[in-house]
Amino acid sequence: MNTERLTKQIDFLIEVEKLKTIYRQNMVFDRSRHENSAEHSWHLVLMALILTDTTADPSVDKAVVMEMLLIHDIVEIDAGDTFLYDETGCATKEDRETRAAQRIFGLLPDDQKQRAIALWQEFDERKTPNALFAAALDNMQPVLNHYINGGSAIRHHALTRSQIIEKKQFIQQASPALWQITLEYINKSAEAGFYTPD
Amino acid sequence: MNTERLTKQIDFLIEVEKLKTIYRQNMVFDRSRHENSAEHSWHLVLMALILTDTTADPSVDKAVVMEMLLIHDIVEIDAGDTFLYDETGCATKEDRETRAAQRIFGLLPDDQKQRAIALWQEFDERKTPNALFAAALDNMQPVLNHYINGGSAIRHHALTRSQIIEKKQFIQQASPALWQITLEYINKSAEAGFYTPD
Repeated sequence: MNTERLTKQIDFLIEVEKLKTIYRQNMVFDRSRHENSAEHSWHLVLMALILTDTTADPSVDKAVVMEMLLIHDIVEIDAGDTFLYDETGCATKEDRETRAAQRIFGLLPDDQKQRAIALWQEFDERKTPNALFAAALDNMQPVLNHYINGGSAIRHHALTRSQIIEKKQFIQQASPALWQITLEYINKSAEAGFYTPD
Repeated sequence: MNTERLTKQIDFLIEVEKLKTIYRQNMVFDRSRHENSAEHSWHLVLMALILTDTTADPSVDKAVVMEMLLIHDIVEIDAGDTFLYDETGCATKEDRETRAAQRIFGLLPDDQKQRAIALWQEFDERKTPNALFAAALDNMQPVLNHYINGGSAIRHHALTRSQIIEKKQFIQQASPALWQITLEYINKSAEAGFYTPD
């Protein structure tokens, strides 16, 4: 048994416990608390598992997308969750998250560290088919969430339908099928009054 | 686009939001609340990703174990989380969970439903190398959690070290390396007084 390797892996797996206490803007189903980035990641990996065959480009590798989504938010342990519509926070996000990736993935054995950082960077750059599809799922899930939860966590941000569409419309390029559903739910939330009129 | 298939998939993915509100006995890192089964599942899938190379039998298929752990607790949406040491709850668990699997996985297109039920049953029966390794991770994570969280959620159950070992010792068969770490953390918690003396 490679004890040194295993010890590093366990140290990393203990550290990531903290992602369960990084809270997002959205609420959970019963509106009792904000959603955290660990359960959000679980939901996204499951979405990739279930939706790839109907909504992804044939060049997308489902296993890679699942791995990417599993780790994509771990940097938030140090960098915090940055709300998509927070312009100030988004301006410093890259620097904060890059340092976080070095520290947290740096707990892993070197080969696993390199792979995690490479996957996280690929996700962040949103250029490859895998990263575009992963980002599409990451951006679609909150739209479902807004509608399911009766707009409970989104109303007070006074976002308009146009602002939501501006941030989300890259989904159309990543997956026309996913975009069709995303737009359907954006429209449902707008009609229900969860977004502020344009 | 196969609209009917996609609609079923989305209905399932909306239904599983509820797993984020199924709470377990353990606490999260800052002891602010109980851990839920969605974030617990995320942690386990990540454990499978990271630990398979050092702790699993070579016959274990990492991708299958990850998929198994991703879905293994979804039945709790209907059946609730059954505490491992609750003998009464454990006696009715199988029946409650089987009905839950039929209803919840039944929301999926038929091929995905069949696969999810088969994987969940394989996990539950704990006979194949994949299922044994998945169950070992599922049983090891709470042991780490007890120690990290200073025994905060386990003390009042007054469990002894022997009771913990009795439930967990199958890990030795699934993975001697995982068992070595599990035992190390059981001993640390016992020494720290988080378990009741035998």
